[in-house]
Amino acid sequence: MIRVALDAMGGDGAPRVEIEGAVRALEDLPEGFLIQLVGPQDVIAAELAHFPDLNRARVEIHHAPDVIGMGEKPLTAVRRKPHSSLAVGLGLQANGHSDAFVSAGNTGAILAGSTVMFGLHGGVDRASVGALLPTAEHPVLMLDAGANVDCSARELRNFAYLGSTYMRDVIGRPDPAVGLLNVGEEDSKGGAILKEVHQLLKDAPRIRYVGNIEGRDILPGHTRHGHIDVVVCDGLVGNVVLKFYESVIQLVSSLLGRVPGLLGRKDVQDALGMLDYSQYGGAPLLGVRGVSIVCHGSSTANAIKHAVRVAVQSVESELDEHIRGEFALHQTGEPA
Amino acid sequence: MIRVALDAMGGDGAPRVEIEGAVRALEDLPEGFLIQLVGPQDVIAAELAHFPDLNRARVEIHHAPDVIGMGEKPLTAVRRKPHSSLAVGLGLQANGHSDAFVSAGNTGAILAGSTVMFGLHGGVDRASVGALLPTAEHPVLMLDAGANVDCSARELRNFAYLGSTYMRDVIGRPDPAVGLLNVGEEDSKGGAILKEVHQLLKDAPRIRYVGNIEGRDILPGHTRHGHIDVVVCDGLVGNVVLKFYESVIQLVSSLLGRVPGLLGRKDVQDALGMLDYSQYGGAPLLGVRGVSIVCHGSSTANAIKHAVRVAVQSVESELDEHIRGEFALHQTGEPA
Repeated sequence: MIRVALDAMGGDGAPRVEIEGAVRALEDLPEGFLIQLVGPQDVIAAELAHFPDLNRARVEIHHAPDVIGMGEKPLTAVRRKPHSSLAVGLGLQANGHSDAFVSAGNTGAILAGSTVMFGLHGGVDRASVGALLPTAEHPVLMLDAGANVDCSARELRNFAYLGSTYMRDVIGRPDPAVGLLNVGEEDSKGGAILKEVHQLLKDAPRIRYVGNIEGRDILPGHTRHGHIDVVVCDGLVGNVVLKFYESVIQLVSSLLGRVPGLLGRKDVQDALGMLDYSQYGGAPLLGVRGVSIVCHGSSTANAIKHAVRVAVQSVESELDEHIRGEFALHQTGEPA
Repeated sequence: MIRVALDAMGGDGAPRVEIEGAVRALEDLPEGFLIQLVGPQDVIAAELAHFPDLNRARVEIHHAPDVIGMGEKPLTAVRRKPHSSLAVGLGLQANGHSDAFVSAGNTGAILAGSTVMFGLHGGVDRASVGALLPTAEHPVLMLDAGANVDCSARELRNFAYLGSTYMRDVIGRPDPAVGLLNVGEEDSKGGAILKEVHQLLKDAPRIRYVGNIEGRDILPGHTRHGHIDVVVCDGLVGNVVLKFYESVIQLVSSLLGRVPGLLGRKDVQDALGMLDYSQYGGAPLLGVRGVSIVCHGSSTANAIKHAVRVAVQSVESELDEHIRGEFALHQTGEPA
């Protein structure tokens, strides 16, 4: 039985949204997992009371009285609050009592906590948050989207390995194509680091590199050279694009909302539904020795449900072991 | 009479789109300017023949037999092709025979050519392309959007001055607010350069700095601290966001196009019309001693018309003189 620890106190709507997301996951997803709700015992118990029909055999409560806020400094918060839902949830996995962690809390703290408590795989210098973006064809994984700014060329190259492994294992793309987000296609484009990454990726074994791509290539999901599965970029660019994208959807909805009756139509909802990335659940934190899924602070219960699904799939597909193996290949002398 | 030189061979649809754009500008915009069409004499004459009713007193043809392609290396191309439409058009202004230049050609070549042939204002280290983005409230100027990657803190600080002057002079915002595009609001966010710019902007005289902003703040046109007129960022981020935005509009149109009859409805077109930034015309190239307007390669005639309008407004408002004055203040000991 796969054990998924869920930070019950993470997001803007916590704990209600988290508990409802857990309930939906248990009701809607295939069996084979249980959920470990992490947070203040009494708060969780009170929320669970709203769901009297829930199969409690698949729910554990792990008491954590403290909460890390969205504005707190990540590493400091993790160190000073060992009884926070985030630290307790990660601790379960670090101690072998859990298989995956899901949180809609402070992204920096999840990143810092997972890195400190799980450690990084050998050869990985920096963990990365991958964001699945809805595109016209299929979701594309953009990483880093977690504000890992000022990445080195080697770190960016490693993001290509992390992203490719994830897309193959969890999303089921047999031979993922990687693009490097740049200002143009040509070899000469970008600053010193991007030029270096471009060369590193050209030479990277086991990476299907399609070359530099531009901002306009992400959403079509392909360039004229073929489709894209993984978009590699610095966390500044990734974070800005991700948040920008979220705001576009809101703007389009608000514009169309001015036309009476339009957004209520099922065919219109279906057409725009592709842009709803709560269906993709959380963003995987890649490179740490373990499974950690980061959800948006404003996640809905549906998004939490799908994040639990992503966590379960990550464990089932042995993503962590495959990433370890990928980087072990580099270290044993395989050219990289 | 303001003289606007238009690169007739610039964009993907050149020369037809450019000539039609010029005709529309002459027909639709207030008088007070003439258009200098720059390109092969015979090609331009043939296109003009489609518009027999045009008032030819407001049109000049300046022969330029050569063309700089989209894929050419900017500075090399400008130097090797002195008879290109781009070099001839810029040369008219450099020699006092024109007041503004508009081109939908190779952006890098327009940037390089304008910098070399006009020179930069004292105190400006680097010219910048500003892109007006449609937002829910009013257009916001994002700069740099022209692929000026690896900007220094001082260069980014200067973008705030260039952008503020443009928004005040040409767009008519009396006291433009500037945001720095980052991964979060807090002082601690971003890499070393962004942290330095953040401090520089806090201390910058005559700049109304609202602080770090995030990708999600651009399109609403405001943060919770107030509205935004100017978004300062490195050219990598700006270029990616701009191209990404363009592709979102296409994606939304294509999704809604699946609903029969929807995109043909006037109320739907009106609602989405706000996102059509061909209405904003070209992107100003700021910091050079002169007026240079960069249009998208895929510009429509309507976009060219509006770019001509932007060029005329830039000349009328004495933008260039005001930018010179702004930077002269820095150089005469004003703290900056």
